[in-house]
Formats: sequence, structure tokens, C-alpha cells
Amino acid sequence: MYVKEGRTMKNLIAISQHRKPADFILRNARVADVFSLVWKTADIVVAGNKIVAIDSQGRYQAEREEDAEGRYVIPGLMDAHIHIESSMLTPEQFSRILLPHGVTSVVTDPHEIANVAGATGLQYMLDAAKKAELDIYFMLPSSVPAAAFEHAGAVMKAKDLAPFLVEDQVLGIAEVMDFPAVLAGQEDMLEKIQLGHNRRMIIDGHGAGLSPTQITGYRAAGIHTDHECINAEEALDRVEQGMYVLIREGSAAKNVKDVLPAVNSYNARRFAFCTDDKHLDEIIQEGTINHAVALAIKEGMEPLQAIQLATLNVAECYRLYEKGALAPGYIADFVMLEELETMKPAAVWKSGQKVAEAGMMLTQNPVKVTVPDSILRSVHLPELSTADLALPMKGTYANIIEVIPNQIITKKLQADVDVANGYFKPCIKKDYLKIAVFERHHLRHTKSVAIVHGLGLKAGAIATTVAHDSHNAIVVGTNDEDILAALHALEQINGGLVVVEAGKVLAQMALPVGGIMTNIEAQQAEQQLQEVHKALHMIHPTCHFHLFLTLSFLSLPVIPSLKLTDTGLFDVEAFRHLSVDASN
Amino acid sequence: MYVKEGRTMKNLIAISQHRKPADFILRNARVADVFSLVWKTADIVVAGNKIVAIDSQGRYQAEREEDAEGRYVIPGLMDAHIHIESSMLTPEQFSRILLPHGVTSVVTDPHEIANVAGATGLQYMLDAAKKAELDIYFMLPSSVPAAAFEHAGAVMKAKDLAPFLVEDQVLGIAEVMDFPAVLAGQEDMLEKIQLGHNRRMIIDGHGAGLSPTQITGYRAAGIHTDHECINAEEALDRVEQGMYVLIREGSAAKNVKDVLPAVNSYNARRFAFCTDDKHLDEIIQEGTINHAVALAIKEGMEPLQAIQLATLNVAECYRLYEKGALAPGYIADFVMLEELETMKPAAVWKSGQKVAEAGMMLTQNPVKVTVPDSILRSVHLPELSTADLALPMKGTYANIIEVIPNQIITKKLQADVDVANGYFKPCIKKDYLKIAVFERHHLRHTKSVAIVHGLGLKAGAIATTVAHDSHNAIVVGTNDEDILAALHALEQINGGLVVVEAGKVLAQMALPVGGIMTNIEAQQAEQQLQEVHKALHMIHPTCHFHLFLTLSFLSLPVIPSLKLTDTGLFDVEAFRHLSVDASN
Repeated sequence: MYVKEGRTMKNLIAISQHRKPADFILRNARVADVFSLVWKTADIVVAGNKIVAIDSQGRYQAEREEDAEGRYVIPGLMDAHIHIESSMLTPEQFSRILLPHGVTSVVTDPHEIANVAGATGLQYMLDAAKKAELDIYFMLPSSVPAAAFEHAGAVMKAKDLAPFLVEDQVLGIAEVMDFPAVLAGQEDMLEKIQLGHNRRMIIDGHGAGLSPTQITGYRAAGIHTDHECINAEEALDRVEQGMYVLIREGSAAKNVKDVLPAVNSYNARRFAFCTDDKHLDEIIQEGTINHAVALAIKEGMEPLQAIQLATLNVAECYRLYEKGALAPGYIADFVMLEELETMKPAAVWKSGQKVAEAGMMLTQNPVKVTVPDSILRSVHLPELSTADLALPMKGTYANIIEVIPNQIITKKLQADVDVANGYFKPCIKKDYLKIAVFERHHLRHTKSVAIVHGLGLKAGAIATTVAHDSHNAIVVGTNDEDILAALHALEQINGGLVVVEAGKVLAQMALPVGGIMTNIEAQQAEQQLQEVHKALHMIHPTCHFHLFLTLSFLSLPVIPSLKLTDTGLFDVEAFRHLSVDASN
Repeated sequence: MYVKEGRTMKNLIAISQHRKPADFILRNARVADVFSLVWKTADIVVAGNKIVAIDSQGRYQAEREEDAEGRYVIPGLMDAHIHIESSMLTPEQFSRILLPHGVTSVVTDPHEIANVAGATGLQYMLDAAKKAELDIYFMLPSSVPAAAFEHAGAVMKAKDLAPFLVEDQVLGIAEVMDFPAVLAGQEDMLEKIQLGHNRRMIIDGHGAGLSPTQITGYRAAGIHTDHECINAEEALDRVEQGMYVLIREGSAAKNVKDVLPAVNSYNARRFAFCTDDKHLDEIIQEGTINHAVALAIKEGMEPLQAIQLATLNVAECYRLYEKGALAPGYIADFVMLEELETMKPAAVWKSGQKVAEAGMMLTQNPVKVTVPDSILRSVHLPELSTADLALPMKGTYANIIEVIPNQIITKKLQADVDVANGYFKPCIKKDYLKIAVFERHHLRHTKSVAIVHGLGLKAGAIATTVAHDSHNAIVVGTNDEDILAALHALEQINGGLVVVEAGKVLAQMALPVGGIMTNIEAQQAEQQLQEVHKALHMIHPTCHFHLFLTLSFLSLPVIPSLKLTDTGLFDVEAFRHLSVDASN
């Protein structure tokens, strides 16, 4: 895969037999044996990017040495499933906030950038990932677009995915979400899945809420994994039916506590940890998989068992045969811990090189990765006026999107709203605000306007191009002028997050890479995010939830109940568009 | 792999969702869950060659049904390592004695036939295996020839193995035995190993007696498995260093009892069962892997744990992802047991078809597989006379091969022998017999004659072309005339086993396929073998060990102490040829 300065087989053998010195030895480590779940005190002997020996007799010599002084050393942690774009960082920057936490390999599904920029976006991510010290593996997105009736930036069919299968970094087909298409045996869907089978690759599943029979259907399609289990019962059903269960701990979805009771010493081999979506600030603060492991230990799991779920089991599930263990012949990714229970790393080695220490990267920021121009200029809005925001109402009774704070599901609310001259008028007091989605990829001029309750802005407007999954421009506001100003600002910065009040931009965070990522350093990005949150507080002083995050899921038409896309207000359960105007 | 009448993915999905009937259901089975090591009562629902569902609610319908009446049903057993040639049967016949015992997949190393017939032999085995109902996977032999200083029928270097890598049946590189070559980093050896790595395949090891440091060297070469552990300590070392341990139970080598104590519920995932070499009659009588499982249960292992070592763990080690479990999406290989502890099958299904019942195959004997002519005529001896058997002696003191019954090691004995007219004269009373090896592949006219003690023939001579590993003709006898008659008969039948007395053939078993296998049915072969053993008894009434088996290992120059090859008497530990005449 990432062949970083490896040594030849002949050389490694010579070093193993003491005919040549090794490159580096970490002495006196309390080494995790993830095969047998025991600790042993030994030297970790490294040559090139590999472990040559785990030696408890001190018999090897090397050019460089370090003394672990009895500290715990575990294999580099591995994330079975994560969306890098959700961190808002580009791969090479994302790598730099993850490695200090002890995560050395991730498996990612880049469907966000693929939904914006198709094959160009996918290629960009693969190229950027090569510049990262983190080992980033890719699953090819199976759900672009997520729904047929709205417009994302691209469509990726089997023929569009196929060229990417030969890439070393690619391990299979990403989370298959469209379960109706799978279970109906829909040709396009099966064709994508078959791509993976033809090359004996892994097919990830997204089995949220699927019944046992539906999982049986997924298994008939040869789907290998599920990361959507929210309780032990679901997890045990997946394992029983032959799937790996990836226990998820992210920002919105935190399943470790509820799923862990399913794991015992017999079936543990079928479980691994993953992240799915996690916010920038939370990753910086607590990491990802290291945090899941610490949580599992806190919940009562044997530390080595938890570590195994974060190392060997991920490697086995994704068929990365030289990873996930501290043993001769394995890639030299390892983490020296300061504390076991908290999983706090003292230092991190990647492919035999120490890359992080005491929570800081030791290496320089990589040369900036070139982003294709089309990706840097991915926000295209037509000239807009208040006429484009008009929401005609015959009566006053309306279908309203009701937000549930910090949830991605919404409710359908029906109520009387203020109407002036036959058009909807936002009411701050009753919290009936105007929300709109504008197609922003290909100037299709599609858009829709609706009413939302529960976001609670007291003034101004906020807009973003992070709007799952099609990432059009979504905006909510108390008045048309601020809504237009927010959209205009959004286009000016090539996408991101914008907070506007009284016609002025209070704060903005540019996400110019596809309108969903920034390629500045993490610490800078975090600062910008904090500025945006301060500004949010100014227009919504009592807000106690992630406004932008909640907003960005109001466009996701595969999660109930009422959502807004560029083609209209959508009733997810009835699976049809709905008019805002509910009066007969 | 063996795509037997599979159903399309679309079809399988439809059946899983009850839109179409399945093909077959085995109802009321006590089904082994090898992921969690629990039993559950359920119907096994089959469509094409796959399991569609394991259903405990009786919700599926099928064209054909059978009632397991509560019997235990386990996944088809899998053998991680076996030499088919040691059964003396060709693959398609071997399959028919194995399936009734519940073994449905094997991984074989065909180095015996490769040593005789090189690439032609390898291709023949691959073709014959395709006609077998058993799933036969191949590892490409890494040790042809086994030793550089003797003459086998072929030499297979990396370039000779490479064309076979694309075959679906091929999983990797077979047991790497030449540890000095590996540890010295010898080019040819590493080239063969690298072939496997280039295609991310498995590399089997043969780590007999290797120290931990030597195993570290094997791991530097990326060797994945070892089947030569004779005790728990060795096994734990291999597992710790990252290898899979294949616990062997064959005819000569029986390691289950001694290695099993190494296995616990944490490390069990790194252990699997294998056979290596097993005799025809023992396979017919007790099977292979089923016997290992029954033995493990008898030794105190949880039945489901033992079953897992014979199913899921073999599949995972050899990366056969759709095998080794009873779950939706897996290949429908399963065994309904009459009794659990003895592992006695009531019936066996292979790829969804019932192929065996009550110990008998249900299917017809397959159409005979064409054997290439060069393989059917593989025994070429020059015109021989007693002059070719002359063993000149200056004195009477000789280096003698001392046989240890039923062992493959021998001792070096030095003693005075009978000499007449300057030539060795066999003495039946003192049991100093004449032994000879004649090159028989390419008429090289190489041969050597020596003296053996411990075989105990009272009359006549025996000869065979099963002589590990180069399979030249090896003969031992009480007088030159019978020795010549035995060699002549051997050539007449194109190789096999011959027993001669007073110039007449008492019994013979033709092994015309390469001089090491017969392609008649197993029961016939077993009968012939019994005739041969009766005849042996006539010339050695008190023999209590496998004469032919012992003889066939007297030519193996990699196992101590004194062995005989076509290039001379060989002192294995000193690693040089030795003269028979020990007088100065």
C-alpha cells in the first residue's frame, strides 16, 4: 500500500538473524499481544517500515534507540469507517490531528466530496491522501447521489466507479444505504456491488433500522459490514448473519455504550470500532478511535479486548494482512501510551518513524496539495432577488419542518403561519422562519422555499454549502434581505458557513474545497469555527445545540420526516413531494 | 471458485425476501454458529450453491425439503494442509473418500507429483481437481526439488510457478521447507516467496524444529503458517510471532494431543486443523479433519471450538471469505451429524447438493480424468544386470543405514558385514540387506547401492517408486536376482509397489499416475494394498510396521541421519556424501 522506505526481504531476514543492525529499537516496552490478549515486556525492533522482532531478551542492536521505560505500547489504532469531509479538513490536514491521538490507519467513504465533484473529487481525495502520513484507505461511494429526485453535483454509476478499483488505496464499495434498491434487486445498485465482488473486495453496508429479514437480503447481496447498530440486539443479529459489526462512536451517533454488551470473548473477533461522522473540535480534543477504546474500557471491557477491536479486528475485516498487530513482519505502526485507561498517547510511530509526541505532530506540515480548480470553484448560484424567495400561500395553514435539536430526524408540523399579500412572512416570536435550498453545482436554477420551526434565530440568517448529502446551498433566516446576503457571501467564499445580520456578515468560515472542506491547518480552522459560533450566539443567544449541523441535515431526504431539497419539500415516509401550502 | 450452478445476486435477494421459493431447506437442524460458538435450532435455507437464510421461524418455502429432526449440523470441514498423493489416489477419487467423512474443502501442496512431473504434473492435478466434488485449493510447491544434490523428475523455479498464480484454485506458495535458504536470503528461494507476496497470497511455512529466532526469520520473509509444531510451546511461539498454527493429525505425525493445550478462547482464532500425510486405509476408515475434531473433543475441547478450528479458522487463514460458516451468503457446504462427539456424518451437502449419506457417496463416479501420457509412463530404467548392483568393499567395515521402525529418521550404524570376492553380500540372519536407489525420471543412469539394517526381510525383495521426495525407484532385497526382478516389475506397471520372492512377483500395486498415484476407485486400491501387505507378510512374517512407508522415507535427504539418493549415501547432519565402505 503506502510503501514508505521499506527494506528488501533479504535485508529484513539478515536483520532478523542478527547479521545487520536494525534501524530503531523501542526498548522495555509493555507490548500488547492482540492475538492472545496478553501483555509482555519486550523490545520492539524496527527495520524500514516493518517490525522485525518483538524481543524479550535484549538481543538486537540498532542505529537508534529509545527507552519506553515500561510504558504500554499498542498497535496503531485503526478506524473501520469515517467520513473525512465531516471534519471539514482535507485529508493531509486531517491526518495531522488524528495521528497524535494514536490513530494510524482509517478506512474512509468519500461520498460527500463525490456528491459535489464526482470522479474529480474522488481522484482529488486519493491524491491528497497520498500526501498524508496517516494511512487512508478508500471505499468507493455507492450512493451518489443519495436520492434520485434531488440534484447533487454528480452521478456516479458502476462505470464511473470502476476505474478506481485498481488503486492500491481502494478496498471495496462504500456503505450501501439504498436498501429498497438492494432488496428490489435494482440493476444499477447490484452492478455497483458486483464491482466489488468481481475483485473479491469488501462491501460495506448501512443497515440503519433494518430488520433481520432485510439484513438477510443484504447478505444475499454479499454485503459484509454494518456500522448502524444502536443496540446489542441488532448487533447480535448482524454477527449471526455473517456480518462484521463496526461499533460507532462519533459526534451525533454514539453507540459504544449500547452495543458493547453484545461482545463476548467468542464473538469479539467479529466486532471493530469506527467513527462515521465527527466534528473538527471534538476530534482535536478527544480523538476518535482512541476515545472509543477508552470509553469501552470505562464501560468494563478488558483493555486488551478493546484494543483488539481497534486494531487486529479492523485489519482482518478490511483484509489488511500486515496491519493491526505488534509482531514480526507487521507494519511498524505503534503507540506508546502515557496512560492505558484513557488511551492517552505519549508518542506515535507510523511505518517505523516517530511522527507524534505528547499530542503534537513532529513532522512538518506537508506541501500543499493541489486542489483542482473545478473543486475550488464549486459554488454557482444565479443572480438572486427577493422574488426568488417568495413563498405563495393561498391560506395560512402550512406544512412546516419541525426541528428536533441535535437530531437528524424532523417532524411534520401543520399550523397557521403569518401571510402578507399572499406570501409567507417569517415570525421570529413564533419561530416560523424561512428556509430555502438552492442548487449550486451546475446552475440548474432549481430551488425550493419552505418554513422551519425550532431553529430559533432571533435575527439575521445563516447559510451553508454543507447540506447532506447533495451539498447544495441551504439557508435559513428571519428576513429575505439577510437570506440573500448570506447566499451571496457564501458564493463569494466558494462555500462554507456564513452568519449574517442586518445585511452584514458577522462571521464566515470558508470551505472552498468543494464547499465542504478547508485546506488550512486544523488549529486555524478551529479558530474560524469558534468565531462562527460566537456570531451564531449573537443572533441566537439561547441556542444550546449545533445550529449549522442541524441545518445541514434538514436537506437529507432519506431520513424522516420532512426535509427540503432543491426539488421541493419532501415527505420522507410517504416518499413524495409536498406543498408548503396545506390549505385546500 | 468452483462456481457450481450458482444463482444470480438478484435471484438470491428475491429468495431472501420471500418473493421466490428457495431450492432446498433442511428443517429443524441444530445449527452451529461458528462466530459466537452457540447452537441454535433453525432451518437451513439453500438457493443454488449458497445459504440464503438460517431461519428459526420456519418462514421459508422451497422446492425440496428434508427434516434434520434436531440433528447437529455444522459447516463443511476444511483441511488447511494435505498432500493428496500420500493417499495414493488421484484428486477425483480422493474426493470420494473424503466427502462422506464431512470434509468439503482441502488446501493441498502437490509437491510429490511436481517432483515427478513438474509443471505437467501440477497442471494435471489442477485439471483433475476440477472434476472432484470436493473443493481442492492448491499452494504452489516451493521445494522442487527438495535437495539440490539429488535428481528428481523436475525443477520448478519461480518462473515455472508463476503461470499458475492466475488459477482460481491457487491460493499461494506451499510449505517453505528450505530454511537455510530462507535465512541466508538465497535469491531463488526469496523469488518464489515474493511471487506470493506480489499477489497478496498466502505463504505456507514448514517450521519443523525451528527456534524462535529462526521463526522470526521466516516472518521477515512474510511466511504465514506452520504445521510442524509438536508441542504447545512451539505453537505459542508461532502464534506470538504472527503465524497461524495448523495443528496436524495425520498417519505418521499426530500432534493434536500435544498442541491442543496451547489453545484458549482468546488465541483460538489463530489455530486451524490440518492433515499433512495420511494413508489410504486410515482415511477410508476414520477420515481426516473430522477425526482431528473428534480427537480434540475427546481431549477436552469445547465441541464448537474444535469445529471452529476446522471451519471458520481455516477459511480465514486461507482468505476463503464465503466459506467456513453457516450463515446467509456463505457457500452451502454443511454436514448433518449422526453423533457430535464422534463427528460421524449422517449426510453431507456440497455447494447445496447432498453428495454423501451414511458414509457413502450418492453421486456417480466421475468420468475418468485424462492423465497426460508422460505422467502415465514416468518410470524409465536402463537395462540392468547384477553388475549394476555390485557394492565393492575393500574391507568388511561398513556405514550402514539403521532403520527405526515407523520413524522417518534413521541412525548411522558402523559394523562388519559379509564380503565375498570384494563385494558386499547380504545376510538375512544379521539383517544386513542390500538397498539401492535408481534414478527413474530421465534415464540419467545415476544410482547408488548401500546397506540397510532393520527392515528385516527374510526373503525376496520389495521396490517402490514412492520415495520421498524425488520419487526415484528404491529397492531393498536379500539377493540380487530378486532385486532385479522387483525393479523390472516396477517398470512394467509404470511404478507402484512390488513384492518379489524367488524371482516371482508375489503382489504388486500399480501407481501409474506419476509412479505415485492410482486412478482406480479407492475400495479397489485398498484391496490391492491389502494384497501387497499379505505378500509382505510372506517375506517378513514378524513385521509389525509399515515396510513400504519406512522404505519410502529412506531416500529423504533432509531428515537425519543416513539416507540414500541416486547420487549416493548421504550423511544428513554432516551434509555430505559418504562411502558405504568404512574401512580405511
